[in-house]
Amino acid sequence: MKALYFDGKLTVRDMPKPQRVSGEALIQVLLAGICGTDREILKGYSGFHGIPGHEFVGRVVECDDQQWLGRRVVGEINLACGHCAWCARGLGRHCPHRTVLGIVNRPGVFAEYVTLPVANLHNVPDNVSDSAATFTEPVAAACEILEQMTIPPGTAVAIIGDGRLGLLVAQVLRHAGAQVTLIGRHGWKLDLARAWGVKVLSEANEQLPSSSFPVTVEATGSPRGISEALRLVEPRGTLVMKSTFHGAANFDATKLVVDEVTLLGSRCGVFAPALELLRREQVLVQPLIAKTFPLELGREAFEYLDRTSALKVLLEVGSR
Amino acid sequence: MKALYFDGKLTVRDMPKPQRVSGEALIQVLLAGICGTDREILKGYSGFHGIPGHEFVGRVVECDDQQWLGRRVVGEINLACGHCAWCARGLGRHCPHRTVLGIVNRPGVFAEYVTLPVANLHNVPDNVSDSAATFTEPVAAACEILEQMTIPPGTAVAIIGDGRLGLLVAQVLRHAGAQVTLIGRHGWKLDLARAWGVKVLSEANEQLPSSSFPVTVEATGSPRGISEALRLVEPRGTLVMKSTFHGAANFDATKLVVDEVTLLGSRCGVFAPALELLRREQVLVQPLIAKTFPLELGREAFEYLDRTSALKVLLEVGSR
Repeated sequence: MKALYFDGKLTVRDMPKPQRVSGEALIQVLLAGICGTDREILKGYSGFHGIPGHEFVGRVVECDDQQWLGRRVVGEINLACGHCAWCARGLGRHCPHRTVLGIVNRPGVFAEYVTLPVANLHNVPDNVSDSAATFTEPVAAACEILEQMTIPPGTAVAIIGDGRLGLLVAQVLRHAGAQVTLIGRHGWKLDLARAWGVKVLSEANEQLPSSSFPVTVEATGSPRGISEALRLVEPRGTLVMKSTFHGAANFDATKLVVDEVTLLGSRCGVFAPALELLRREQVLVQPLIAKTFPLELGREAFEYLDRTSALKVLLEVGSR
Repeated sequence: MKALYFDGKLTVRDMPKPQRVSGEALIQVLLAGICGTDREILKGYSGFHGIPGHEFVGRVVECDDQQWLGRRVVGEINLACGHCAWCARGLGRHCPHRTVLGIVNRPGVFAEYVTLPVANLHNVPDNVSDSAATFTEPVAAACEILEQMTIPPGTAVAIIGDGRLGLLVAQVLRHAGAQVTLIGRHGWKLDLARAWGVKVLSEANEQLPSSSFPVTVEATGSPRGISEALRLVEPRGTLVMKSTFHGAANFDATKLVVDEVTLLGSRCGVFAPALELLRREQVLVQPLIAKTFPLELGREAFEYLDRTSALKVLLEVGSR
């Protein structure tokens, strides 16, 4: 099968089709999305070598349970051991023995086929397009904030960063009833959010008063966002950190302690609420897609992301 | 009256006795404690110039309400405006207009007399000695953790730092039923904690496995403690930051996000539970007192702290 392979550089390779074991499905990948984490992996994040990619939609072509055959699916990316204390608590995504699709010790989806345990799979509702379905994982990551904390309706939330994650978090929290202000650097991205009814603010032109939001979300993908999110959060407020980046965070710890701020690390989430938001079109993802490349042009797709401010690039892998 | 005054250097001065306004009490200071924050102030923290000091026990000598006259008291250190949204929520210690005794725009207790609103005062129970009473504020700071989060009995908690704050937090959390491990650098301080039944560990000799505690407390008073506290906290766990220090924090933000750790800034607390713990001798403070200096030798007292690893030094100001 054709696949992208990263071993310090990214190449197209012809590789053997993966063999599924019992309990797993063999999935033909239809469409995959390039995520910020994939770009960090190409810079050395997590030390991953192999087939990257974890955002996808595919079709089940082999499986023990015949019910799954032919279904269009997306898949949760953490593969838990199923036996440890974390798994017993239903927190397999924190299982210390886990592998992570295309990120930690598990071949990813930038390939014609991939295997995943059936337990990780979710049916894609008919009215969710392939391209929208590839957003299930990042929408779930946005939803994770609501799994971790309660944000009462009407709560003022500032989101720092108008990238893809910031735009998804803005929609998810707005749908949950929060009064969202999105702060960013790119006029056209802020315009997208404004069209969805989100209040927006250009980082360059305006400054918000300090300590003015009970909740702030850091979604810049770089260390700089923390200081601004900390500046904006009010005493006893919560700063949600969504970005994973290669490097150290650096901020004024005195403000954190004196104002008794809660800094909440937040990563991936569960898929069911994300698919429901996509099904009801309560989160819009089509305007985020800049371009679709064929799998063979994967390197070009990454280069395109490097030289533009595109929000999302997809890789077309197979056809229905 | 005699007072210590800081304006870049610390001197003994003869100053006018402070005038109380209506609602305030004039208090004769009996005994005061030197806190890590006072030492940070002498290094430039908070830009405070004036009479430092906020840990004290005193006697009310003037007051509108005659009931308070002659009473032995301690006092909460935040002077809130009483009118803002924070004050309305009972969170005057986060009032943006507040002054803070000996720290922000309010003369402190390293003086023969001090004024404080009667609302800030607490009676000292008869069986709590003057020296123990000076610990009310730091014990309240330790209790604050339990005001901010629930720590179910039996929870494993690692405290990083065997200074005064670490030793107080260890006692408070142990009394609350936590299984405390105190990690420090000083054999004799760890011996104190061991005598109280706390499990101790020398930073130099032993290393605990990473991600092994649901709760860790950073109490080193320096930026270095955060990385170790983050290393030890398990996924979805809470890292409580108690230290205020002059400078920036620096840590691996990826671990925070991937493991979805909560970092909880925690500062001062309310006095009532702290006085109750002192009254019942459930927190022992006498072994922490290294030496008592007369007020006039305040500079020597600070120098003594600089050149020794003493846990607590008191200043004798007045006599009963």
